Amino acid sequence: MRTRFILIQTSHAGNVGGTARAMKVMGFDDLVLVAPRWANVLRREETIQRASGANDVLDNARIVDTLDEALDGMDHLCATAMTPRDFGPPTRHPREHFASLLEGAGAEVARPGGVAFLFGSERFGMRNEDVYRCHSCLSIPTDPLFGSLNLAAAVQLIAYDWRQALGGYALPPASAPERPLADAKALAGMLQHLEQALVAVDFLDPEAPKKLMPRLNQLFNRAAPTEEEVHILRGVAKAMLQTADRAKR
Amino acid sequence: MRTRFILIQTSHAGNVGGTARAMKVMGFDDLVLVAPRWANVLRREETIQRASGANDVLDNARIVDTLDEALDGMDHLCATAMTPRDFGPPTRHPREHFASLLEGAGAEVARPGGVAFLFGSERFGMRNEDVYRCHSCLSIPTDPLFGSLNLAAAVQLIAYDWRQALGGYALPPASAPERPLADAKALAGMLQHLEQALVAVDFLDPEAPKKLMPRLNQLFNRAAPTEEEVHILRGVAKAMLQTADRAKR
Repeated sequence: MRTRFILIQTSHAGNVGGTARAMKVMGFDDLVLVAPRWANVLRREETIQRASGANDVLDNARIVDTLDEALDGMDHLCATAMTPRDFGPPTRHPREHFASLLEGAGAEVARPGGVAFLFGSERFGMRNEDVYRCHSCLSIPTDPLFGSLNLAAAVQLIAYDWRQALGGYALPPASAPERPLADAKALAGMLQHLEQALVAVDFLDPEAPKKLMPRLNQLFNRAAPTEEEVHILRGVAKAMLQTADRAKR
Repeated sequence: MRTRFILIQTSHAGNVGGTARAMKVMGFDDLVLVAPRWANVLRREETIQRASGANDVLDNARIVDTLDEALDGMDHLCATAMTPRDFGPPTRHPREHFASLLEGAGAEVARPGGVAFLFGSERFGMRNEDVYRCHSCLSIPTDPLFGSLNLAAAVQLIAYDWRQALGGYALPPASAPERPLADAKALAGMLQHLEQALVAVDFLDPEAPKKLMPRLNQLFNRAAPTEEEVHILRGVAKAMLQTADRAKR
C-alpha cells in the first residue's frame, strides 16, 4: 500500500534525519516536508548524520509550502496528536486503527489505496485545521504523566506498527540449524547416568536421596534440553564417574 | 513487573538521553549503563538535551563496570541483536516473545519477576559472551535491506511493545462527549428534506432522477452521521429551500 510520512513545520534537522532512518528500517521511503524551518534541511549536516545511511529517503523527499500539496494520491489521512480535538476525527490507538483499516470495519468500507501519516511541529504539534482534514487521529499510548515523545521516535513507532499491520518482516534466518529436542527416553537415560555419578562423588546418598533426582528431573524438564545437550550432560556424568574411580585407587 | 534497560558500552551521549526519554514516555525508569564511553555521560549537555525532561531517569541511572553488576533482581534477560548467534538463546520477535513470557508458555513456566533488556554498543551490537547470558534474544523486525535501527529508537520500540504487553495505557479522555449516531429514521427524514432542496435548486430533476438519491443515501450510510450532523444537514436543506423560494419571487 502506498504510504507517506508528512512532517509539518519541523524545526530540528536531526528529527528529519531520524525520520528518514526510522522510515527506511521499516521499508518506507515517501517523505514530504511541509514548510520546514530550514529550506535546506535535507542537505544539512545534522540531517545526514542522523539519517545514518537512509540517504535515498532524503534524496527523494519533497519540500512543499502547504499541506494540500503533500496529499496527492493519498485517500486516508492519519493525524498524530497527543490530545483529541473537538470536531476532529475519532482518536484511536495505532494498532487497533491499523487492524480495522486493513480488515475493513465492515464489507462496505473500501480498503484505502494510499495512507499518509501527518506529524506536527516539535513545539506545537498539529494545528487544529490540519487535524480536521484527517480521517483518523492516532494517539500513541504513552505514560499520562510524561507524554513527551520525540518526533523521530513517534515516526519510528507508527512506522513499526504500520509495517507490522501490513504483514511485517520475518525473523532473520537462524545461523545454526534447529537442534532437535531430546526425547523423554534420552532424558531418563541421562538422569540415571547422572544419578550414578552423583552417588560416586558422594553428593547423593542412596540411603537418604531427599528427592534430589525428582528435583533434577523437573529442572531438566523445564530446560527442555536438545539431544546435543543430553550428550554433553552424559559426558559430564561419565567424567565424574571416572574421576571418582581414580580417587578410589 | 520490575523492568530494567541496560546499555552496554554506549558511545553517543545523545543515545543515552534519547533512551531516558524513550523509557519515560512508556513509564519505565530503571536505567543502567555498563562501561559507557564517557564516564560523565549522565551529565553531558547532549544527554540532557535529548532526554528532554526525563531527568529523573538520568538522575537515578547507575553506571557500572561490568554486566554482572547490572543484573541484580533480574531473572529474565532479553538480549537485543540483529543476527542470531550460534549457541545463543532462541531469537524471537518482541511481541510474540512478550506474549508468551506473560501468558506463560505453559502452566509449569513461572512468570518472571524482573525483566532486563540489554542493548550493545552502537557500532558492534552485543558481544557473543553477553548474548549467551540471556534467556532470549529479541530481533526487531526491520527491512532486511536496511536494518540500521538507531539505539534510542530500538529502546523506544522495545519499551513500547513491553508496555503494551503489560497492558498499555488508555486513550486520553475525549475532550468532547461521544455524540450519538443518528438512527435510520432520522437519516431517511434528512434525505427526504435534502431531496426537496435538490429539486428546488434545480439540481435534481424528478422526471430523470438518475439514482441520485440512492447514491447520496449510500454516501451518508458510510459516513454514519451523528444526530448533530443530521441536524446540520437539515439546516442546509432548509436554507436551500428558502433561497430557492426567494429566487422565484
